[in-house]
Amino acid sequence: MEELGELETPILLTCTLCVWRAADGLVAELLEMPGMERVRSINPVVGETNDGGLNDIRSRPITRADVHAALANATSGPVAEGSVGAGAGTVAFSWKGGIGTSSRVLPKSLGGYTVGVLVQTNFGGVLQVLGAPVGKELGKYAYRDAVEGSRGDGSCMIVVATDAPIGERNLRRLAARAMAGLARTGSSFSNGSGDFAIAFSTAPEVRRPLATVSPAGAAVVLRQGSELQNEDVSPLFEAVIEATEEAIYNSMFMATPVTYRGRTMDALPLDKVRAILDKYRVKER
Amino acid sequence: MEELGELETPILLTCTLCVWRAADGLVAELLEMPGMERVRSINPVVGETNDGGLNDIRSRPITRADVHAALANATSGPVAEGSVGAGAGTVAFSWKGGIGTSSRVLPKSLGGYTVGVLVQTNFGGVLQVLGAPVGKELGKYAYRDAVEGSRGDGSCMIVVATDAPIGERNLRRLAARAMAGLARTGSSFSNGSGDFAIAFSTAPEVRRPLATVSPAGAAVVLRQGSELQNEDVSPLFEAVIEATEEAIYNSMFMATPVTYRGRTMDALPLDKVRAILDKYRVKER
Amino acid sequence: MEELGELETPILLTCTLCVWRAADGLVAELLEMPGMERVRSINPVVGETNDGGLNDIRSRPITRADVHAALANATSGPVAEGSVGAGAGTVAFSWKGGIGTSSRVLPKSLGGYTVGVLVQTNFGGVLQVLGAPVGKELGKYAYRDAVEGSRGDGSCMIVVATDAPIGERNLRRLAARAMAGLARTGSSFSNGSGDFAIAFSTAPEVRRPLATVSPAGAAVVLRQGSELQNEDVSPLFEAVIEATEEAIYNSMFMATPVTYRGRTMDALPLDKVRAILDKYRVKER
Amino acid sequence: MEELGELETPILLTCTLCVWRAADGLVAELLEMPGMERVRSINPVVGETNDGGLNDIRSRPITRADVHAALANATSGPVAEGSVGAGAGTVAFSWKGGIGTSSRVLPKSLGGYTVGVLVQTNFGGVLQVLGAPVGKELGKYAYRDAVEGSRGDGSCMIVVATDAPIGERNLRRLAARAMAGLARTGSSFSNGSGDFAIAFSTAPEVRRPLATVSPAGAAVVLRQGSELQNEDVSPLFEAVIEATEEAIYNSMFMATPVTYRGRTMDALPLDKVRAILDKYRVKER
Repeated sequence: MEELGELETPILLTCTLCVWRAADGLVAELLEMPGMERVRSINPVVGETNDGGLNDIRSRPITRADVHAALANATSGPVAEGSVGAGAGTVAFSWKGGIGTSSRVLPKSLGGYTVGVLVQTNFGGVLQVLGAPVGKELGKYAYRDAVEGSRGDGSCMIVVATDAPIGERNLRRLAARAMAGLARTGSSFSNGSGDFAIAFSTAPEVRRPLATVSPAGAAVVLRQGSELQNEDVSPLFEAVIEATEEAIYNSMFMATPVTYRGRTMDALPLDKVRAILDKYRVKER
Repeated sequence: MEELGELETPILLTCTLCVWRAADGLVAELLEMPGMERVRSINPVVGETNDGGLNDIRSRPITRADVHAALANATSGPVAEGSVGAGAGTVAFSWKGGIGTSSRVLPKSLGGYTVGVLVQTNFGGVLQVLGAPVGKELGKYAYRDAVEGSRGDGSCMIVVATDAPIGERNLRRLAARAMAGLARTGSSFSNGSGDFAIAFSTAPEVRRPLATVSPAGAAVVLRQGSELQNEDVSPLFEAVIEATEEAIYNSMFMATPVTYRGRTMDALPLDKVRAILDKYRVKER
Repeated sequence: MEELGELETPILLTCTLCVWRAADGLVAELLEMPGMERVRSINPVVGETNDGGLNDIRSRPITRADVHAALANATSGPVAEGSVGAGAGTVAFSWKGGIGTSSRVLPKSLGGYTVGVLVQTNFGGVLQVLGAPVGKELGKYAYRDAVEGSRGDGSCMIVVATDAPIGERNLRRLAARAMAGLARTGSSFSNGSGDFAIAFSTAPEVRRPLATVSPAGAAVVLRQGSELQNEDVSPLFEAVIEATEEAIYNSMFMATPVTYRGRTMDALPLDKVRAILDKYRVKER
Repeated sequence: MEELGELETPILLTCTLCVWRAADGLVAELLEMPGMERVRSINPVVGETNDGGLNDIRSRPITRADVHAALANATSGPVAEGSVGAGAGTVAFSWKGGIGTSSRVLPKSLGGYTVGVLVQTNFGGVLQVLGAPVGKELGKYAYRDAVEGSRGDGSCMIVVATDAPIGERNLRRLAARAMAGLARTGSSFSNGSGDFAIAFSTAPEVRRPLATVSPAGAAVVLRQGSELQNEDVSPLFEAVIEATEEAIYNSMFMATPVTYRGRTMDALPLDKVRAILDKYRVKER
């Protein structure tokens, strides 16, 4: 992707040790799609976090059938959040984490573009929600208190989608800003964290037609396009920071408890969170 | 520095268009120091932010004499903060910014190391102080409301020093974590931001002796050293996040108003900030 | 590896679409090794080139059994070269490519270290052998003349091993120098090339003991080590350039013709190459 | 440039310790140009190599007047080569180096674009000219035999210009390929080398209009453009490799001896080089 500036496949999320089965399944599925008969190179994109505390990760349970189902069932509309999919076994801030999403729509005068964020939360720190010290109030600090004596390690996987027409350089900058949203939730970015953000655009203005090798002797054909100027990307940057922060909260607010080998990872107690938010007057912000 | 993993000079901070005069002055000073008679290569390190709203930046006022004074007057002990030095003309969150510092000392059991941070604050966003929405309460939003119709652009320059024995790879990771502290203050990381963090260690265990070319035929001499294991750097990461956040607040709390060409950039009204912090019960955090 | 500076697994080489099966097989094998019972994270390293012209790459034929055999049969001593293993289907400079190796031993006075290189050659360009224009003399130019109308695309995968005690920064610099050896063979580094080099050290001085989380309250233990000084790495750089160039030649000199779906990719005709080398007086170099 | 994908100034080349004076002079000149009255940020681009063996580098002799003259006298047409300008004091392969240029024009069917390269040669290795072992035949090896007992250290600064419409990603890839041309000349890429290549395009299709902040409320205006497809950049890559190799030869073929403090650095003896090229039948290549 860095070399060619292109995303070739859907993005799958899974567990650390399942990455390669997911990637192989994705490639297998794509190779069999119509029009792909002569394709001999695919760069699948698979994100991961390590849910080894609530998942029999060593068994690497993902199969091609799981990938097939994920592709077949992908729809537009509301996204399932919480303890689902690649978020089924994740832990964030010593509570049950999971999948969360959020988005922002820019005002018309700033382009009217949408920025959507999906996160897979599995990391440590001391949770703060819109500035309210939820982790501290609930007595949860990641360091040396999470699953199996870990040190708050773990990662957040972040996928950013936008319909703004921006190319690979500004997409990379957009992805970098997602980390600011992660920081605002209280993440500790510890040694074991492999926090990662990837961004892509769905805008037709930056879409690339299928690579075609021009016949020998034919004229070189340029790729036409249009892009936001650098000066106009700042609102997208603000949008991705806010949406990432909110997506992380949503991943936790929607999570349900998960029990594995006799140990239960609780979901955030929402009533208590509400009380803490009230105490710190978050509604008035 | 990336190639050789070495910091060769003190770090100077100045204004964007003064960088080269500061660098040349630094090199001039160093070349004349005892023992430097045969040196023919120096890689000076100079950080900058753009204070063109409160500084006649086009005149590039820095001279070698300024650099000489900076080196001659450098001391240990408390650091001047606020509208001083390279922070004299900076603006942060639409208030007067400046120089700020903060540090953390790890508990003995985690190594007892110190992490110190110095910032030069000159950027936009919506200020939040330990989670309290100060910018919002005071009606200050960076976008399209800062000096001369800017869009909240600008940068934060961050210098991280530690006495923990960590090498260039972990120093780079430490510097990266400073950005999380910046994010927590409400920075918008806009298009024009060139936020930059650099970290160095003063630990003798990772100090490199002067490069010496062994005489032909002599045996190769290894460099001995010792370093923190990866597993033990997480507390430093937390320390740098906290210290960066606090250093940014300090740069603003210590700033004094600056008037330039008839326009005054006010300092944060501390009494109002205090009231906002009380309202959001920040002391109880 | 960039974050932690550590190589956790053996390095496997395979075909582009086999990467994920190889990686999963490698992880499966490692998880079952003694002492690995509690391991829940592994970062397998798998290199690849695209041999889709001489391999039913879409079938992704690699299985865990292949990985098992590769690990079980790994030995010290001479390395099989030519049309073997991951080089069975590769094409270089429009001739049969494959696996090649070479090494250099530094003089005692420069440390006496060894640098070994293994390559998987699958790329285009116009072959030159120690400066002799072999490709031109034999009428082989990669562009628009390789398998299936390709444009000389393809990659060289390069693995560099050394017993010199150098850390991750200098290993990365060592790997970068391998590209100079590749350049000297006439590689065209075309759009589709994903040329990649990775380097590791076997020196005990830079080996890291198994990561152990110190018990709470225990003192932090530093990692002791010793490394070559920057000033002493240049001979290693020269060694890796030479060894990479030679390993690429070896991959082609040892290659044997491969026929796939009725098309045969010839090996370099060694007698003709010898005549060309004589013509250009390569022996006298 | 990495963040914004833009080159804001002409590119100056000078000596290592003169970089900052050149940069400051360049900024001073630009600030006084018509239309620049309100500019308060400039990112000057200055390349360098260390010519401390043949230049009183510690005196840092470059002044704004030199920069003014360089800008005022810049013309199209043939470029001065050899021991001129920033190449006056450079040394390559233990002979006098300097400034060299070369270019390639692609066939019409591949776009008809031009790739031009300018180099400042100041590095070590064992010179080979189109494969002929000139350094070896002349008894010149860089390691431990260059000026003042150096180890063949030093750098090559490379500037690549093209009229092909390619954006920042492919310009970066183009620059990376210049290193392959450098490798083919026998450069040893030693520890002290800071070899650097920068590429820019003059094509109107990728030129950016002056950054303008749209008035509040106005519609966002996209930047229109067109670019070569990834599939069509390979010929440019081959062109830059060849042109860089040739530019390096030209820098040495055009160099004249330079004497400094009683020591003379000779130019390559062209008659002997010619004989070596004949011996190795380079003309027949």
